[in-house]
Amino acid sequence: MSGARSPRVQIPPPDDGARRAAEARQRELLKPPGSLGRLERLAVELAAMTGGDLRGVERAAFLVFAADHGVAAEGVSAYPAEVTRQMVRAFLSGGAAIAVLARRAGFPLWVVDVGVCGDLDAALEGVDRQQLVRARVRDGARNFAHEPALRPDEVDAALAVGATRVEAALVAGAGLIGLGEMGIGNTTAAAAVLAAATGCDPRAVTGPGTGIDGRGLESKVEVVRSALARHRPDPDDPLDVLAKVGGLEIAALTGAIVAAAAARTPVLLDGFIVTTAALLAEALAPGCRDYLIAAHRSREPGHGLALERLALSPLLDLDLRLGEGSGAALALPVVIAAAALHTEMATFAEAGVSAGDGP
Amino acid sequence: MSGARSPRVQIPPPDDGARRAAEARQRELLKPPGSLGRLERLAVELAAMTGGDLRGVERAAFLVFAADHGVAAEGVSAYPAEVTRQMVRAFLSGGAAIAVLARRAGFPLWVVDVGVCGDLDAALEGVDRQQLVRARVRDGARNFAHEPALRPDEVDAALAVGATRVEAALVAGAGLIGLGEMGIGNTTAAAAVLAAATGCDPRAVTGPGTGIDGRGLESKVEVVRSALARHRPDPDDPLDVLAKVGGLEIAALTGAIVAAAAARTPVLLDGFIVTTAALLAEALAPGCRDYLIAAHRSREPGHGLALERLALSPLLDLDLRLGEGSGAALALPVVIAAAALHTEMATFAEAGVSAGDGP
Repeated sequence: MSGARSPRVQIPPPDDGARRAAEARQRELLKPPGSLGRLERLAVELAAMTGGDLRGVERAAFLVFAADHGVAAEGVSAYPAEVTRQMVRAFLSGGAAIAVLARRAGFPLWVVDVGVCGDLDAALEGVDRQQLVRARVRDGARNFAHEPALRPDEVDAALAVGATRVEAALVAGAGLIGLGEMGIGNTTAAAAVLAAATGCDPRAVTGPGTGIDGRGLESKVEVVRSALARHRPDPDDPLDVLAKVGGLEIAALTGAIVAAAAARTPVLLDGFIVTTAALLAEALAPGCRDYLIAAHRSREPGHGLALERLALSPLLDLDLRLGEGSGAALALPVVIAAAALHTEMATFAEAGVSAGDGP
Repeated sequence: MSGARSPRVQIPPPDDGARRAAEARQRELLKPPGSLGRLERLAVELAAMTGGDLRGVERAAFLVFAADHGVAAEGVSAYPAEVTRQMVRAFLSGGAAIAVLARRAGFPLWVVDVGVCGDLDAALEGVDRQQLVRARVRDGARNFAHEPALRPDEVDAALAVGATRVEAALVAGAGLIGLGEMGIGNTTAAAAVLAAATGCDPRAVTGPGTGIDGRGLESKVEVVRSALARHRPDPDDPLDVLAKVGGLEIAALTGAIVAAAAARTPVLLDGFIVTTAALLAEALAPGCRDYLIAAHRSREPGHGLALERLALSPLLDLDLRLGEGSGAALALPVVIAAAALHTEMATFAEAGVSAGDGP
């Protein structure tokens, strides 16, 4: 841990009183005890996170952090690096999956350029940029096949971008933060980060990403393995891991998660990249995981490991592997429903319904 | 099959041209092929059901069929039979789970009394009854521990109630039918129906329902087993199964599913009871299953078997076992999202994004 370099953030513990009150209310609500399953447990977790104000989850704000990766030059993605900035355009102009979901659900979607390569302004010609946040730390992470991805001060700057964006969303009234990412090459970086932080074999956490397989996947595993051998990131130092084999959007996501947890705000994770950042956030500021909701289990093999290390059980399992925050957006209605059922259902007494002799 | 007695309903086949067009569009949309997983397959299925008009799913209508069961007298439920009519009150007055979900999602919720026992008007005093449909066939199914549950004409009448309610919803503009049920004792009836229709052992499909276990569950299995031995329903005749060990709301659900499929309208199933009715609908009118969407996998053991027989893969797995249509309501946003992504996402060409060399 580079505690001396990064500001120490204290994560407040969940509210046990609110948790117990929510558990008691769940037992009174008009349903056989336990019959709403995962939604009951989620409502209780939300109560513990928020001190009992479950309605805040209806005021979701989504942050999608975008950055490029020098390692994309190693042929680890099915798409060329220019797609990162082209997708930023699609987020802002409404044609990307996360943009469709945001428009439909009515939550604000902020697209944060934390390190997109190339001429973004040219790519965005004619597009409304009101939801774009310009916070580029540098033009993409360096190619960690050859050199460390980021300097320590660049990691700090990217962490700060994430924290600042969360704080801005909270000031604007957000009660839940949904997270997403875009960055050609970033499943390679996340695999390297996860392998470094957990000590597991790169093969176990390196997957198809946008859709490589066969020889491409073998080569991706080798890129991760040799980068770890070359840079030897300290598994106990998340900042060193981010610097050696991370990426700007992964660092920004890490900073965002720490900031949200510090403010006792529920964070709706997306897939592999975001959950890997959550593992780093928990290492940086223990206690973060108590403010995390795992939206879904993606098809990327590393995602399951990251969820397991955080002891998080995902809400959805829809075989997704898109990223962008799309899984988080799809799980948001479930989170809102859990909160609404908890706060709006009648109790047996209020409804005048005979209680059972059930368990 | 009692084909002579029940009107023959032809189920039109799904539209293969619309299916192929939807598959082609999915390959063009701005995402790595397959990266939206289950949502891509669902969008293609919706296109085949509707002939390509996926937007109809946004006009969902929910029908909750309520009826009592004489077999409740055998102590198979953790709740007394009066709870059926008390819950009808809670559906209409807004305190039940499905009422909260309907209000939040903004879909109409129709509560259909197809056989609720007792003085429903007294139970509904002071409650707005605008969403109540009075279609009581008789005061609950008879106790099949002693006699057949329904006469054949009562089965027909209940089937017709379901069909009529679907037709009314379609006339009012519904593009998707969500189904739910309420009836103290109905997991016992559904277990008997499912065991009769599939030939499987009652123990494999009899579960805790509202929350009985231990000796109560053993006794519930015995009630099912001895009813099947006594009445010997014809496994190849869904109408005979409904008459011997069924229930009025199960028959109404069966009629509703056949009517929706006949009109090529997607049906969002709920849990064990509704899915058991779907199995009967498929037996009565082969091809129904092509219009079914399995919302979730409930904790009732029989639900998995019914889904498997229909070759349906559920969207959610949230450990629910409430009924009421609550699982269907929770899955509705996923269905709407699948349709919205299919229709509203840009293609690679429209977005000016470089195509990949992915699979």
